[in-house]
Amino acid sequence: MSDADAIARSAADAMWAGDRATQAMGMTLDTVTAGRAQISMTVREDMVNGHGICHGGFIFALADSAFAFACNSRNLVTVAAGARIDFLKPAKLGDRLTGVSELVHQGKRSGIYDSVVTNQHGEVIAQFRGNSATIGGPLTEIKES
Amino acid sequence: MSDADAIARSAADAMWAGDRATQAMGMTLDTVTAGRAQISMTVREDMVNGHGICHGGFIFALADSAFAFACNSRNLVTVAAGARIDFLKPAKLGDRLTGVSELVHQGKRSGIYDSVVTNQHGEVIAQFRGNSATIGGPLTEIKES
Amino acid sequence: MSDADAIARSAADAMWAGDRATQAMGMTLDTVTAGRAQISMTVREDMVNGHGICHGGFIFALADSAFAFACNSRNLVTVAAGARIDFLKPAKLGDRLTGVSELVHQGKRSGIYDSVVTNQHGEVIAQFRGNSATIGGPLTEIKES
Amino acid sequence: MSDADAIARSAADAMWAGDRATQAMGMTLDTVTAGRAQISMTVREDMVNGHGICHGGFIFALADSAFAFACNSRNLVTVAAGARIDFLKPAKLGDRLTGVSELVHQGKRSGIYDSVVTNQHGEVIAQFRGNSATIGGPLTEIKES
Repeated sequence: MSDADAIARSAADAMWAGDRATQAMGMTLDTVTAGRAQISMTVREDMVNGHGICHGGFIFALADSAFAFACNSRNLVTVAAGARIDFLKPAKLGDRLTGVSELVHQGKRSGIYDSVVTNQHGEVIAQFRGNSATIGGPLTEIKES
Repeated sequence: MSDADAIARSAADAMWAGDRATQAMGMTLDTVTAGRAQISMTVREDMVNGHGICHGGFIFALADSAFAFACNSRNLVTVAAGARIDFLKPAKLGDRLTGVSELVHQGKRSGIYDSVVTNQHGEVIAQFRGNSATIGGPLTEIKES
Repeated sequence: MSDADAIARSAADAMWAGDRATQAMGMTLDTVTAGRAQISMTVREDMVNGHGICHGGFIFALADSAFAFACNSRNLVTVAAGARIDFLKPAKLGDRLTGVSELVHQGKRSGIYDSVVTNQHGEVIAQFRGNSATIGGPLTEIKES
Repeated sequence: MSDADAIARSAADAMWAGDRATQAMGMTLDTVTAGRAQISMTVREDMVNGHGICHGGFIFALADSAFAFACNSRNLVTVAAGARIDFLKPAKLGDRLTGVSELVHQGKRSGIYDSVVTNQHGEVIAQFRGNSATIGGPLTEIKES
């Protein structure tokens, strides 16, 4: 594990501990490395909308959470300034969705990260591009060994 | 109430009845007329993220739900093809958020609707622009009086 | 004319003088007031693409120029950080296009402005939403009378 | 050269021949293969705006042209439905810009393509994500050998 990946892991642990929303949606943080995060979530009954498919808000939330862990992996407090999502295929009740977010560009403060949401068959459900803004210092103190 | 508004109301009632997600997030459908919908939601403890503010997914979900009711108000099955959201101000635990979506452009199949999310102080939390795609026929049979 | 509108006019004059690109595309600056600008342009032969319609780049350029004059109307150097455009109807050779940009939200540094491009028949050609970033001080010295 | 690449080349040749706009901006079509196109352009004096940098419209136009050649490479008439661009670094007079567009997702009719614009130093100037809509049949007759 590189130093950058160790920092990413520490930052993620600090974020995850206080993230009620991500936990309440039943998300699991599969992996996080420098500039990349993968999160999974199962579509529950309380996530299904009037068309019988997963509410776009939860698909966005999964992509957005992966984005949040990826863009905070530098261990600097970073928030979403905006995002664009394209919905490509509906997700259904019981589907196991995976959101992977990866760094496209990171400036001093502003960054771009792409998240892709796939289902258990490997089909792409949504493409997401997020704009991040770094607004503060370290999320957590990294202890030198 | 115009005929178009009566149709909007009937379509909304049909959608709302089956919309587990919107209900589970504690949303209330305040008003719906032709090409316009207003929905409210309170930020709960299970909607707060690791930075202590409302997870962007729930702000998106509110804007997206208002968009869904606005773009289905023609009583033709319509889904979100994509959307862009700009987060302007954080929402906090206990905030009462209101999402208003209004028609910008409606073609035969594709449409554009803008949603604005505000808090109980009238401050704008997010600006959202959604792209809709009409994919089917009537949501509900409209009974002529 | 309000003070804010007078400032907008002075800032626009300063910008326009050095704007080779806008002039080379044959644009005319119709009006500029605080947070709003209107620019017109005729689709020339050298703006038509392989499908026989106006290249999207020139429609974007018109919306983007109106956005630039609107977001610089505070007389603070401001640039486009990004933008989303939706193309709703093709523009043809000889069409007279008008781009109107208006303030949606202006924070300290970042802003959102919507531009609408219409043709000579009043039909909407494109909807554009721009994200601005203020990066400097005054564009021009405003002389107090 | 694969069959798909030969089709892409034929489609591009047919498009390029009639594309006055792309030619007038001094663009060169470097390469086109199935789902990918690369185009270059030098920033001329008539492309510079009031801030002394390349007008965003021309950066968009380069990204959009690469997108057009990439999304028409199936030899089916396809237009841009919309696009999002993020401007990351200014381009200056005399800069040699390269736009590369690649397929992210292609459905029956709608597609997503990402364009990246870089300068002669390999620095990224802009990130662009385009939404395409296929609206017709073949651009050109492909002769079987």
